Amino acid sequence: MAARPGGSVFFLTDYGLADEFAGVVRAAVFRHAPGVPMIDVTHGVPPFDVRAGALALARAVPHLGPGIVLAVVDPGVGTARRGVAVSVRSSSGCDGPHHFVGPDNGLLPWAVDALGGAEGAVSLPPPPGAGLGTTFDGRDVFAPAAARLWQGTPLSELGEGLDPGTLVRLAPPRCAVSRGALQAEVQWVDRFGNVQLAAGPDDATAAALGDELEVVATAVHRAQRVRAFAALGPGALGVVVDANGRLALVCDRRSAATVLRVQPGDVVTVRTAGPAGGSS
Amino acid sequence: MAARPGGSVFFLTDYGLADEFAGVVRAAVFRHAPGVPMIDVTHGVPPFDVRAGALALARAVPHLGPGIVLAVVDPGVGTARRGVAVSVRSSSGCDGPHHFVGPDNGLLPWAVDALGGAEGAVSLPPPPGAGLGTTFDGRDVFAPAAARLWQGTPLSELGEGLDPGTLVRLAPPRCAVSRGALQAEVQWVDRFGNVQLAAGPDDATAAALGDELEVVATAVHRAQRVRAFAALGPGALGVVVDANGRLALVCDRRSAATVLRVQPGDVVTVRTAGPAGGSS
Amino acid sequence: MAARPGGSVFFLTDYGLADEFAGVVRAAVFRHAPGVPMIDVTHGVPPFDVRAGALALARAVPHLGPGIVLAVVDPGVGTARRGVAVSVRSSSGCDGPHHFVGPDNGLLPWAVDALGGAEGAVSLPPPPGAGLGTTFDGRDVFAPAAARLWQGTPLSELGEGLDPGTLVRLAPPRCAVSRGALQAEVQWVDRFGNVQLAAGPDDATAAALGDELEVVATAVHRAQRVRAFAALGPGALGVVVDANGRLALVCDRRSAATVLRVQPGDVVTVRTAGPAGGSS
Repeated sequence: MAARPGGSVFFLTDYGLADEFAGVVRAAVFRHAPGVPMIDVTHGVPPFDVRAGALALARAVPHLGPGIVLAVVDPGVGTARRGVAVSVRSSSGCDGPHHFVGPDNGLLPWAVDALGGAEGAVSLPPPPGAGLGTTFDGRDVFAPAAARLWQGTPLSELGEGLDPGTLVRLAPPRCAVSRGALQAEVQWVDRFGNVQLAAGPDDATAAALGDELEVVATAVHRAQRVRAFAALGPGALGVVVDANGRLALVCDRRSAATVLRVQPGDVVTVRTAGPAGGSS
Repeated sequence: MAARPGGSVFFLTDYGLADEFAGVVRAAVFRHAPGVPMIDVTHGVPPFDVRAGALALARAVPHLGPGIVLAVVDPGVGTARRGVAVSVRSSSGCDGPHHFVGPDNGLLPWAVDALGGAEGAVSLPPPPGAGLGTTFDGRDVFAPAAARLWQGTPLSELGEGLDPGTLVRLAPPRCAVSRGALQAEVQWVDRFGNVQLAAGPDDATAAALGDELEVVATAVHRAQRVRAFAALGPGALGVVVDANGRLALVCDRRSAATVLRVQPGDVVTVRTAGPAGGSS
Repeated sequence: MAARPGGSVFFLTDYGLADEFAGVVRAAVFRHAPGVPMIDVTHGVPPFDVRAGALALARAVPHLGPGIVLAVVDPGVGTARRGVAVSVRSSSGCDGPHHFVGPDNGLLPWAVDALGGAEGAVSLPPPPGAGLGTTFDGRDVFAPAAARLWQGTPLSELGEGLDPGTLVRLAPPRCAVSRGALQAEVQWVDRFGNVQLAAGPDDATAAALGDELEVVATAVHRAQRVRAFAALGPGALGVVVDANGRLALVCDRRSAATVLRVQPGDVVTVRTAGPAGGSS
C-alpha cells in the first residue's frame, strides 16, 4: 500500500504472546482503521514493568519512522490512572512517530522526550460500560484512539486537553560520575546477556575512564574498553558503546549478565583499573 | 490498503513461535492471496490443547471484525479427522468473521456459536501427496482454503457439504449453581495469573452470592466481590467480572492462580462467606 | 494491496521476541520501503545458532513465495564477517524468494541452494558510524538493503560484487548409509518433540530399511515405519517421512525427543530390527 500520512501503528505491551491479548488489540485497531500497517515493537516487556517498557520504547522510537505508538504496560488496569494521547512537538522535525497512546503512568514520556518533547495531550474517556467490571483498555480505549489518530482525527477530538507537564514521570535512571569512576543503573539485559547501563560515552569521558577497567557488581571483574565484541578474548568482559549509544557490558558469545550476576535495576561501578589490578 | 470485502485472516494455533510453522503458514496464505491482511491472534495455545484453543478463539472472535478465522490445534495431525470450513449464519448481523477454517475436533464450534451459529460447512479434501508421509495441513490444506475464502470463493467450492450439526464438539465447561455457591471450571489462567471461571455474573446472581466470599480451591480463601483490581488491598483476592464478561479471580499485581494453586480444568467453589469466616 | 513484483520481505532471526530488536528492524524495513508486506518466518532461532537458523531457512524457503529473505543469526556481530546480498538463479524458474540479505557466516547458502543456487552476490558496506561502537546490522545494514531490493534496486547497486562460490558454508549435516542401517544427525527438534533427521526416504531405501526398526540413541528403542502419527499405538515410536520430506522420529501426542533423549547435533542410528529384538 502507499504510505499514508498516518504512517504505521507501532505496538508495544507487556501482554506476552501466549494469550490472545495482543491479537485482539491488533484486530481492534485494524477494525477501526482498515488497512493500517501494524508493527509489533515487542509484547515481551516483563508483566507490570512500566520502567522496562518505558526504556524499551525510548530506545525504539528514534528508529520507527512516522506513525502512532500504541503502548500498554499497566500494573493498575481499571484503576483511576488516566488513559492519554500525546502529540510530539512538530518543530522537532524528526520523521518519527507523531502521536502516542497509552496509560499515564510513566510509560510514554521518555520516548516522547527522545523525539523532541510533547506538544499537547488529552485524557481519554473510559470505555462504555466501565464501572460494571474490569476493562480491557488496550482493546476498548487505546486501540480505537490509535486508529482515529492514524486516520487523521485531531488530538483535541479524542478527549479533554491536559498539560503535558502533568504527565506522570518515572524516576530517571541513576548515573553518577566521579574522577575515574562511573556508577550507573543496569537499565536493560537483552536476550544475549548484554548489560546496558544508564550512561553514555560522554559520561565515560567525564569520568576520564581508561581502557583497562574494573566493573564492580557482586564481585570485581577486569574489563576492557573495546569497539566491537570480537576484539575481546574468550570469556573476557568488555565495555562498548552499544547500538543505542549507551555504555554496555558485553562478552563475545556469552552472557555478560550471567558473568556479572546483574539484572535491571542493579547499580554497577565502572572504574579505571589500578596498575596492579587484583581482580577476577 | 482499502478494506476488502474479505476483511482479514485471523490466525490462531498451538505452533508456538520458536519454529517456523506459523511463519510458513503466514507465507502460504499470502502466496495464495497476495495482499491479504493477516492478524496473528495467538500461537501460544499449549501444544495439542484443543480445549484451551477453543476457549481462546471463542473469547477473541466477538472483537475481531470481518474476515476468515484460520485455526489449528491438532493432537492427531495426519489422522482421519476432517479438515473443515464453516460459514457463520449471516442473519446474525454481526460484523465478525464470516468463515472458519480448521480441524473438525472441537476447536471451532464455540467460536462459531459466539457469532450466531453455523450456516454451512464443508469437508476439505486432503492435500496432494497425502498418504505418502505426514502432512502439514496448516500449510497445505487450511492456508489455501482460507486464502480462497478471503478471495471470495464460495464455501461450496471448497469441498463436500456436511451438516454443521455433525461437527465434533467438546464437553461444555462445567458450572453448577446452588443457593449461596457456584462450582465452576477454571477455563483460563492468563499471563498475569488471573483465573477466568466458566461462570458469568448471571450465575453469581442466580446463586445469590454476597460481596464477602470464600473461594475453595486446594484451600479456603477469603475474597471480595469488587469492580476493579485497585479496589483490592495488597494481596487480597477479588472476584470481578472480567473483560470477557466472565467471573474471574484476581489479585492486584499478583498472580491469583499462584495464590490459589489452580490451573485450567480445575473446579473451584465460590460461596458466600459465613459470618465468622475462618479462612486463610 | 496488489502483489508487487517485489513480493514480501521474509524475516528470520535469533533475536527472540522479548526485546524490541525484531520490532525495530520491521519498522526500519517499512520506513525504507513503505507498504512492504513483512512476514515473520521466526525469531526463535536459538541465540547465535547459525546452523539451526540455516536449517530452518532451508526448510521454509520452498514455501514462501516471491520476495526477499532477510535473515540474521550472528555470533560475531560487529566483527569482520561480511554482510551480503545474494540473488537466486533465475533460470531455476521457482516462484520463491529471489534475493537474500544477511551475514556471510553460512546462514544463507543452504536456503539459496534449495531454490536453485546463487546467481550473484555483493558485499554490503558497513553502516555510517561503524567503528565508533557496536553496530546493529539488522537495523542499519540489512533492513535498508532488503528494502531497496524489494523496491527494485539492482543487486549490483548495493555493494561490491563477489563470487557466490566464496560465501562461507557450514559443514553439511551428517548422514551415512550402510546395509540395513542409517546414521544421521538430528537436525531439528520441533515444539512437539518430533526429531527430524538429516536423511530422506531415499536414504532409507538405499539402506533397505524394513518396517520394524531400532533407533539407537542413548538407548536402543523399537520403532515402526509408519505413514501417519495415528498409526502408532500409545507411546510407540515411529519413523515417518515428515512434511519437509525428511525422515523423522515421532510419537503420537508425545515428545519423541524426550523419549529418545536427543537434541540437535546428536547422531542416531536407525536400523532394521533383529528377528528377536531385545530392546526398550
